[in-house]
Amino acid sequence: MPLTPEQKAEIEAQRGESHLTMRAVSDGMEAHLYKAHEVLDHGFIRVVDYMGDDAAICQAARVSYGRGTKSVQNDAGLIRYLMRHWHSTPFEMCEIKLHVKLPVFVARQWIRHRTANVNEYSARYSILDREFYIPASDQLAAQSVVNNQGRGAALEGEEAARVLEILKTDSNRSYDNYEAMISDEGQQGLARELARMNLPTNIYTQWYWKVDLHNLFHFLRLRADAHAQYEIRVYADAICKVVADWVPAAYGAFEDYRLGGANLSGKAMECVRKMIRGEEVTQETSGMSKGEWREFEILIKE
Amino acid sequence: MPLTPEQKAEIEAQRGESHLTMRAVSDGMEAHLYKAHEVLDHGFIRVVDYMGDDAAICQAARVSYGRGTKSVQNDAGLIRYLMRHWHSTPFEMCEIKLHVKLPVFVARQWIRHRTANVNEYSARYSILDREFYIPASDQLAAQSVVNNQGRGAALEGEEAARVLEILKTDSNRSYDNYEAMISDEGQQGLARELARMNLPTNIYTQWYWKVDLHNLFHFLRLRADAHAQYEIRVYADAICKVVADWVPAAYGAFEDYRLGGANLSGKAMECVRKMIRGEEVTQETSGMSKGEWREFEILIKE
Amino acid sequence: MPLTPEQKAEIEAQRGESHLTMRAVSDGMEAHLYKAHEVLDHGFIRVVDYMGDDAAICQAARVSYGRGTKSVQNDAGLIRYLMRHWHSTPFEMCEIKLHVKLPVFVARQWIRHRTANVNEYSARYSILDREFYIPASDQLAAQSVVNNQGRGAALEGEEAARVLEILKTDSNRSYDNYEAMISDEGQQGLARELARMNLPTNIYTQWYWKVDLHNLFHFLRLRADAHAQYEIRVYADAICKVVADWVPAAYGAFEDYRLGGANLSGKAMECVRKMIRGEEVTQETSGMSKGEWREFEILIKE
Amino acid sequence: MPLTPEQKAEIEAQRGESHLTMRAVSDGMEAHLYKAHEVLDHGFIRVVDYMGDDAAICQAARVSYGRGTKSVQNDAGLIRYLMRHWHSTPFEMCEIKLHVKLPVFVARQWIRHRTANVNEYSARYSILDREFYIPASDQLAAQSVVNNQGRGAALEGEEAARVLEILKTDSNRSYDNYEAMISDEGQQGLARELARMNLPTNIYTQWYWKVDLHNLFHFLRLRADAHAQYEIRVYADAICKVVADWVPAAYGAFEDYRLGGANLSGKAMECVRKMIRGEEVTQETSGMSKGEWREFEILIKE
Repeated sequence: MPLTPEQKAEIEAQRGESHLTMRAVSDGMEAHLYKAHEVLDHGFIRVVDYMGDDAAICQAARVSYGRGTKSVQNDAGLIRYLMRHWHSTPFEMCEIKLHVKLPVFVARQWIRHRTANVNEYSARYSILDREFYIPASDQLAAQSVVNNQGRGAALEGEEAARVLEILKTDSNRSYDNYEAMISDEGQQGLARELARMNLPTNIYTQWYWKVDLHNLFHFLRLRADAHAQYEIRVYADAICKVVADWVPAAYGAFEDYRLGGANLSGKAMECVRKMIRGEEVTQETSGMSKGEWREFEILIKE
Repeated sequence: MPLTPEQKAEIEAQRGESHLTMRAVSDGMEAHLYKAHEVLDHGFIRVVDYMGDDAAICQAARVSYGRGTKSVQNDAGLIRYLMRHWHSTPFEMCEIKLHVKLPVFVARQWIRHRTANVNEYSARYSILDREFYIPASDQLAAQSVVNNQGRGAALEGEEAARVLEILKTDSNRSYDNYEAMISDEGQQGLARELARMNLPTNIYTQWYWKVDLHNLFHFLRLRADAHAQYEIRVYADAICKVVADWVPAAYGAFEDYRLGGANLSGKAMECVRKMIRGEEVTQETSGMSKGEWREFEILIKE
Repeated sequence: MPLTPEQKAEIEAQRGESHLTMRAVSDGMEAHLYKAHEVLDHGFIRVVDYMGDDAAICQAARVSYGRGTKSVQNDAGLIRYLMRHWHSTPFEMCEIKLHVKLPVFVARQWIRHRTANVNEYSARYSILDREFYIPASDQLAAQSVVNNQGRGAALEGEEAARVLEILKTDSNRSYDNYEAMISDEGQQGLARELARMNLPTNIYTQWYWKVDLHNLFHFLRLRADAHAQYEIRVYADAICKVVADWVPAAYGAFEDYRLGGANLSGKAMECVRKMIRGEEVTQETSGMSKGEWREFEILIKE
Repeated sequence: MPLTPEQKAEIEAQRGESHLTMRAVSDGMEAHLYKAHEVLDHGFIRVVDYMGDDAAICQAARVSYGRGTKSVQNDAGLIRYLMRHWHSTPFEMCEIKLHVKLPVFVARQWIRHRTANVNEYSARYSILDREFYIPASDQLAAQSVVNNQGRGAALEGEEAARVLEILKTDSNRSYDNYEAMISDEGQQGLARELARMNLPTNIYTQWYWKVDLHNLFHFLRLRADAHAQYEIRVYADAICKVVADWVPAAYGAFEDYRLGGANLSGKAMECVRKMIRGEEVTQETSGMSKGEWREFEILIKE
């Protein structure tokens, strides 16, 4: 259970308070504010604050005195133009702050995106909760045999059961021992900053994460991608839904140009031109490697 | 005159609209929103948006579910602690977006602070206005004779008059010629992206500038400093006033630890300890160079 | 003339000194070290230092103990894979330091790329030289009538002559007045930090610019692009040549995937698939705007 | 044992190869190149590459054509000046690339410094080694009773023995189970990207880490500090030794102004001035909180 009654009450208290502001307000986003969107077995994302909306992107692009809006349609067109031509700075004018609860091994991937602000719960200072990520049975995937960095089909039967048993038992034993080491009953108690090293990386941590929209799109393009590890992809997917409500025009352009788009090499473009003219192209004549050709074929037949 | 009636109307329209939000609201900052605070002869700063307040700093530092506030006094104490011990990430959780109008030579100094987001008015795309910074007479300073990078006393009489005359005449002539080159009356008109190169750097430009509070403090520490060039310092001073109303506790800590504080070297600390014990210290016995000793003496006698 | 005999001697002195190092050495790059490659009428780029080579990219990607090289062919394949799948961090493991001399209006575009280190010649501290960029006659382009941000054909005849005359005269007059204001003969002399504001942005400045290969590629993709302003594009082109000799495999991948490649939206990919299958697609049925369709048609017919 | 014979051979092979270069060479640093400096029980730091030296800092600060060196003494003076006045960009002109082997919980602290380039060994792709950090007995510290974030005295006797036993047993059991889960003998084998979550954070990982000297100093100031956790401080200490040999003048200035220096608030400076004049100051009259006064008293009596 990700939230205690106390935490829920704190969240509800915030959702109950409204104030007047002269700033840009995104109604779509207000509906998400503070709500915990559940991810995995104990995780969540919560929008804690945001700055700007679609109009703010245009306002900055035009360096205008007022809201910068000409019309909703005009704005959407400008936003598509900016996205298509890699004008990144107007998208940097929107900002989002999230409270995220996530397993440590996911946090380790996430933090590789450096252009963001982070405050993480400190296990030097505080005691971690007994909450571990245990995969659902359909996510207990086997190692892929074609891709060193991928998953195959889900394990089944006894094999799956054995893995689940290991993960649960080891998580709990390591936590029991963590507690035993830091306990000050009848002993001094090991320093928290040391005891934590005994905990496996499926334990949950949490942080405040603040990022601008341009860098968030970059994160989402990589992490909402089919090649991303499932456990981070579900966070990216949850964030995508929130962003679609926050800045619908910007998200629409992102979806078309980045998520749904493709980056073709000069060689690939040459093949496309030939194929459109009706000429035959093979891997051999394409100049591409076998792996590249395989990826290319999927792209043009999808 | 920095603002046309049209621009004023756009600003007033924004100030007239209030919306309900569940986000953190800083009443001190709402009073500044959109207002143009005049700087130099044609420049200004305007707060276009902000995220967070003093409580948001504590909320992130505590990674809490609610507002994170225990009490205003508690929060101020935590904020002082964070500032004193160089915990920078909680301050990064606040963000400000400014619209700034400033001379190009000031913009060139400003932009050296890289950890910010910028959208500048494009002189490739648009035509610049005939607005130039002409120093007030008390700022027409002579070159310092002791510091290559500083100013001496203000010029006076004929010498001052001659300088003002040059600046005004050259600004206007260069602008006349800029207009003549881009004009398409009876000719093709030079590309704007080329014509602009004829304009001197006292011409005004404008941009949207967005930065988090930690990096803003870094900017302000360097640019509100007595050694900063006057023409950028007045912008920093104007921003300081706004920040003091936005996040009073954080600004108070910044003022005490950064603006009003001092960074002493190990050698200087050794001297301080000796002097407190009543021992005599001279430049020769201090281990400092003459320049350093001079700076040190000022610090401890101020 | 970009270099004085003194400066040439300093450069030659550095080129004359060789030392033994155990670090990775790129022979292609050593040949460029310190040489001033001329750009525009008074500008240049000079490689002052570099770190890494193609093998260093693979070494980091493999987190290996030795050089990381398996074979040159293997390395090139890995580098293409990394580039294709947007693995940016291995490219960040190479670094280049350039000394660049460039007009101020070019410097203002350049500095918008924030992920780099810069030390610029200080006009607060020092006196600038009388060197201005005056476009060659084939670059005296008219304002484009179809693109607010572009150039049309070059001006000719009297019109061109008039523009050149203006640029030369205004540059020289502003410099004469700059000198007159800072002169301390028979007067105090205006502070340098003030006097510089009289100079137009076609004056040359110079800086040390250090950047990693990933961010350099990002810069080059935008600035070596046909839509970039000519005056910055020639710098990007000069850098491209140097990089091609420094890290030939990485540059080859960059050329194919970024410079020569194309980013197609989801809608555009859908059109491509239809066209390859022999179906007819028009702007109306494509779902693209007119502007977007125009760009798309150029891409697939190039 | 941190290095296999194979890895040692790879390192030796690199140390055996020298090439001529025209770049700046730091002899002090060449002596460190590739050598593994051992840290903790299985970790190390190795310098893989570097760019620049003390003279390169001055060269960039002066934007000079040659080496920028006037004399070693002049350079040291300039470097002290730059450090004292927070001129950070010249220090950014030096760069270092390290290969580091470190426990995951240390890596998690380290990565919070975002202004650096990182390539980490991928546990999605590869299998981790059975190497865990087990504290030496003098580092088995109890939780501090005065500081939530600190350590007290080392545990002793049975209590220490029990903790060591737990850490060793849990590490090994989790690794046994990690192996059992990924094994493909008689089963499919769980995906590596999943199985790794069972491993505790005292397991060792490794990465290539590249950073400029300014940001490295920032890292070292925080992590070589007495308040940093011991397990990261020993890495910072090892890096300090290398940097002292690489750029002796810059390191000397850093040691005096940052490591050995102190940042005093405005209130603290006011107290210092009074105390030097022989006036009495108490916590009550200082305006400082009790905690702050305690820190202040230590500073001035050290």
